[in-house]
Amino acid sequence: MTLLSEALANMAPSATMAMSQKARDMRAQGINVISLAAGEPNFDTPDNIKNAAIAAIDAGKTGYTAVDGIPELKLAISKSFRRNNRLDYTPSQINVSPGGKAVIYNALAATLDPGDEVVIPTPCWVSYPQMVRLLGGTPVTVPCPANNGYRLKAEDLAAHITDKTRWLVLNSPGNPTGTVYERADYAALADVMTAYPNLMILSDEIYEHLDYSGNFISFAQALPQFHDRTLTMNGVSKAYAMTGWRIGYAGGPEWLVKGMAKVMMQTTSNAGSISQWASVEALDGPQDYLIERRAAFRQRRDFVVERLVALEGLRCETPDGAFYAFIPACEAMKHLGIQSDIQLCDRLLTEAHVSVVPGSAFHGPDAFRLSYAADIEILECAMNRMDAFFSRVARP
Amino acid sequence: MTLLSEALANMAPSATMAMSQKARDMRAQGINVISLAAGEPNFDTPDNIKNAAIAAIDAGKTGYTAVDGIPELKLAISKSFRRNNRLDYTPSQINVSPGGKAVIYNALAATLDPGDEVVIPTPCWVSYPQMVRLLGGTPVTVPCPANNGYRLKAEDLAAHITDKTRWLVLNSPGNPTGTVYERADYAALADVMTAYPNLMILSDEIYEHLDYSGNFISFAQALPQFHDRTLTMNGVSKAYAMTGWRIGYAGGPEWLVKGMAKVMMQTTSNAGSISQWASVEALDGPQDYLIERRAAFRQRRDFVVERLVALEGLRCETPDGAFYAFIPACEAMKHLGIQSDIQLCDRLLTEAHVSVVPGSAFHGPDAFRLSYAADIEILECAMNRMDAFFSRVARP
Repeated sequence: MTLLSEALANMAPSATMAMSQKARDMRAQGINVISLAAGEPNFDTPDNIKNAAIAAIDAGKTGYTAVDGIPELKLAISKSFRRNNRLDYTPSQINVSPGGKAVIYNALAATLDPGDEVVIPTPCWVSYPQMVRLLGGTPVTVPCPANNGYRLKAEDLAAHITDKTRWLVLNSPGNPTGTVYERADYAALADVMTAYPNLMILSDEIYEHLDYSGNFISFAQALPQFHDRTLTMNGVSKAYAMTGWRIGYAGGPEWLVKGMAKVMMQTTSNAGSISQWASVEALDGPQDYLIERRAAFRQRRDFVVERLVALEGLRCETPDGAFYAFIPACEAMKHLGIQSDIQLCDRLLTEAHVSVVPGSAFHGPDAFRLSYAADIEILECAMNRMDAFFSRVARP
Repeated sequence: MTLLSEALANMAPSATMAMSQKARDMRAQGINVISLAAGEPNFDTPDNIKNAAIAAIDAGKTGYTAVDGIPELKLAISKSFRRNNRLDYTPSQINVSPGGKAVIYNALAATLDPGDEVVIPTPCWVSYPQMVRLLGGTPVTVPCPANNGYRLKAEDLAAHITDKTRWLVLNSPGNPTGTVYERADYAALADVMTAYPNLMILSDEIYEHLDYSGNFISFAQALPQFHDRTLTMNGVSKAYAMTGWRIGYAGGPEWLVKGMAKVMMQTTSNAGSISQWASVEALDGPQDYLIERRAAFRQRRDFVVERLVALEGLRCETPDGAFYAFIPACEAMKHLGIQSDIQLCDRLLTEAHVSVVPGSAFHGPDAFRLSYAADIEILECAMNRMDAFFSRVARP
């Protein structure tokens, strides 16, 4: 088993962190860097949610709450799962944690023993494997090729699952690829999962409301026979532009939710009380702007992809969801005569003043991730810069 | 090494949790239970702090922040350490986490390898040993007798420290005993600590502003030679009645603060943005109500102790700080013919309708902890009920 201190030393690729710092330094020098690196909507939190937070402050709701969430929020979440996903979770099957990351970490902390394995299809969100390592578990990454839309195939799952596998992590719509699993994709995995009755499924559905394909389905809705061993994770951050409020949540079996509460009792206590009240309004209040915002994101996606496919040396499949484009750049790297996506992103930053994230941070090397959660004018400016950069590269 | 799942199963004494549930059930039945169990001031967050939070909401400060705290809050914390403790911490030596628990957990997660030992004087706050276990470390509890004011003696530290000891946890003013370490108490430990150059000191000073003795001193202020291997932990919860906002912080060596940020990057992200802005105002704004509130707590303490010492079968030293009385109850238990403090607390709840916490939860058996963070009228009513209970017990 890896020592935790080693896991920590290896954590958060230093090149990526160095690049973020470089972007900050360039900005401090007055250089107009466009950052398309962040995983955050560029909308403000809606007013009805802000007003609910202010009302909670005025009402003095400023003390400790039940450790894994106020009853009012659990009820709103329960209703939201039913409304959006036709999933039945009673309030006692719901956990509220200080952010989506914390939900996942608390679930893993409540269940992983040293040596336990967690199967993670890649490219994947940065923190899944890191959390597993921090907790003394073993992340088992499974490369999922672009030609299958970065989706996990049954034969690849079968080749990586063992009796030590405690969790399979699924993420749809996915970060960094925007992949949306259809009902049939999940169905294809069912036989393999059935053969491992101790396997739990973590379904990260935080980008649920950013599905442009119309094919999104919650994992446990698609495969109700796995409902009792699925943790359906979600949160208000991405859908309601509430990243700073730090509220994530999940529905799952009661034994797991109780274990997560025990972890929280010792490690964090409850999520912020005001943020919880704001989240009640987010989930119970008007939902119509979800559709408006999705339309806005879709427009940005279409614009970005149209420009990207025209660039020299890049490929880009149209992502079905989330607000990221994942861009294989082998050809461009060959033209540039460089070996790593980190170097490519560094040159994009230095020469084109556009900040993106290297694919290797997501276990998807020779590529980069671009977030289109920015105003269309900014995206246009960034695309012009990238156009100039890659044209120069291709025709030196 | 203990499996994490075992650590979890053994966590949070089920009798204590069952008792909290019982208190809730009794209340639901209309029984007027007085809870003196919580570790929370019964004041509301001051208006200037609430207004700062509302201003931050209005200004749209609702997105992600730097992972371990906004620069403005780090600066306010740095100034607060200098003002209150004459400690010099630059902003790069400061961590902001979602609550005091999270500060401690992040520090332990950033440093503990399996088998590492953490020395914890007892009676101690419930979560210290549990966090260590969750992270695969070994808590080494050191009983500190009442006749030394529950303070750790050099010879007891020497008897429990080994080459595997990574941390010594100190907590002054302390929970559950209210113990305040004086400069001389720390000085007496110096020789032992010097002999173990890899030992780190976690000084939990969350009750700093609730010192009635005038003897409180920050550990690193008392022993500046240990400044570079001390994490001075504090937070806004207890001093500013902000438990629900979930902001804890610490000053420490830069390598440790960086490690804590790495842990946060993967496990929680930043503490809530609005709560951080509220905390800037807490630390930078007017501080005069700290003195008023301390005077109010002191009055409550004096009242409670005066009543407690008159009760049959109980002992109670006057606590120097925090808002707890820790009450050895051997005699009372003998009269009652019961073996455990859990049973005693259960009878207090059932028969006197007063809820307190068994000492064994704090590794201080045959005792209980009473929080006097309640209005004096409520404390009086609780004391009358306890008087009746213990009189009946003593003279059946």
